[in-house]
Amino acid sequence: MNENKIGTYQFVAEPFHVDFTGRLTLGVLGNHLLNCAGFHAAERGFGMATVNEENYTWVLSRLAIEMEEMPAQYESFSIDTWVEDVYRLFTNRNYAIRDKDGRPIGYARSVWAMINMHTRKPIDLLSVNGGSIRDFICDAPCPIDTPSRIKVDTGEETASLRAKYSDIDVNGHVNSIRYIEHILDLFPLDMYRTQRVRRFEMAYVAESYYDDTLSFYLEGESGSYAAAIRKNGGETVCRAKIIFDNK
Amino acid sequence: MNENKIGTYQFVAEPFHVDFTGRLTLGVLGNHLLNCAGFHAAERGFGMATVNEENYTWVLSRLAIEMEEMPAQYESFSIDTWVEDVYRLFTNRNYAIRDKDGRPIGYARSVWAMINMHTRKPIDLLSVNGGSIRDFICDAPCPIDTPSRIKVDTGEETASLRAKYSDIDVNGHVNSIRYIEHILDLFPLDMYRTQRVRRFEMAYVAESYYDDTLSFYLEGESGSYAAAIRKNGGETVCRAKIIFDNK
Repeated sequence: MNENKIGTYQFVAEPFHVDFTGRLTLGVLGNHLLNCAGFHAAERGFGMATVNEENYTWVLSRLAIEMEEMPAQYESFSIDTWVEDVYRLFTNRNYAIRDKDGRPIGYARSVWAMINMHTRKPIDLLSVNGGSIRDFICDAPCPIDTPSRIKVDTGEETASLRAKYSDIDVNGHVNSIRYIEHILDLFPLDMYRTQRVRRFEMAYVAESYYDDTLSFYLEGESGSYAAAIRKNGGETVCRAKIIFDNK
Repeated sequence: MNENKIGTYQFVAEPFHVDFTGRLTLGVLGNHLLNCAGFHAAERGFGMATVNEENYTWVLSRLAIEMEEMPAQYESFSIDTWVEDVYRLFTNRNYAIRDKDGRPIGYARSVWAMINMHTRKPIDLLSVNGGSIRDFICDAPCPIDTPSRIKVDTGEETASLRAKYSDIDVNGHVNSIRYIEHILDLFPLDMYRTQRVRRFEMAYVAESYYDDTLSFYLEGESGSYAAAIRKNGGETVCRAKIIFDNK
């Protein structure tokens, strides 16, 4: 019953996709998750290419990844993805990440909206193709918490950078995955020797562009951190929550 | 005759692997080239895993990539790779990059040495497995110039950064591809609107490590540039030559 609703995609942890500990980086995993969303949607008639014909586009609003273990260099793994629910203004897409033997090693949750590319206004998902996206709703298990509210109080800047050529995606925005990489770069290398990221949550709030100055704010302790990125001294671009576990 | 000597690998230009112009980034292409080297060598018994058993490792010394055209987002392409020649202290590995119809859209040349992982001393390639790597030498065409000598005279720093967690690979070094990305980030986004990188050459000179300060030196004009990266105010890490063409 759920078979055509779940898309499953195979990967291998490539040498340049692992960090210094030999485990897949969270940025690469995030990239794979977004690609799987694209494959799954395209195969079912509501992918980027199809919705772009209507001048609509999918926008990633939230992403939460929780991993028990990351694939090691050269290991095969797979990603299942499915639509958990569809509402007027957003849809929830979930993921299971499995090791080479099919055992779940992590899960992810994402929240997407659809907007008109010209007006940037949200589209009622239940009106797109008569709401047929709902035909793919699937109740596969995703035993991790839903994305939570992220609050960052500190006004003290931890780091800053200017958005460069390699940060910018085909839409002309800093790409969603780069934010994750830049936030993980706020932590010292030594931390990753003894700890690993168990959960990473991201709330995407606004777009940033080439040459924007991105300021990073980080607070927290004992393995639980919140981070915000603001652009050009003002507007919040995204907020993240990062939970480390001892290895 | 050349069939088992050439390895061919299939790829698709993924959404997060293209730049703002919708074309595959040179960094991602470089990553694919290095992976293809790994696949090809592993399949023929002289890959990293095998040579590591002897405490040897492959070290990339030169890389030159010359592209007529970059694959566009969602396009399929393939990479052929083969060994051009093997000498005592280095081997030349070449590549052809083909579009979805098999038409060559670019070529690449690389130079590799093998070193002892402990002593960091070079290994005589003709002594490894009785020089059997030579059995795979192949004379497939690679109609681009060999890597040239790169000279950078300027003492004026264009940019600098500290090597971060996401720059570091499984060997504990700043990864070879990151240098390429950081060098391309020296050029303004606007340049990539009207020009494209036709040829990128890299000479890898020394390793750099976490928290090293990398200083970038850039000189040249009219589409032909040379760049150097030096670490901690001194030693040269790598040198690059970048040739742009009008689109």
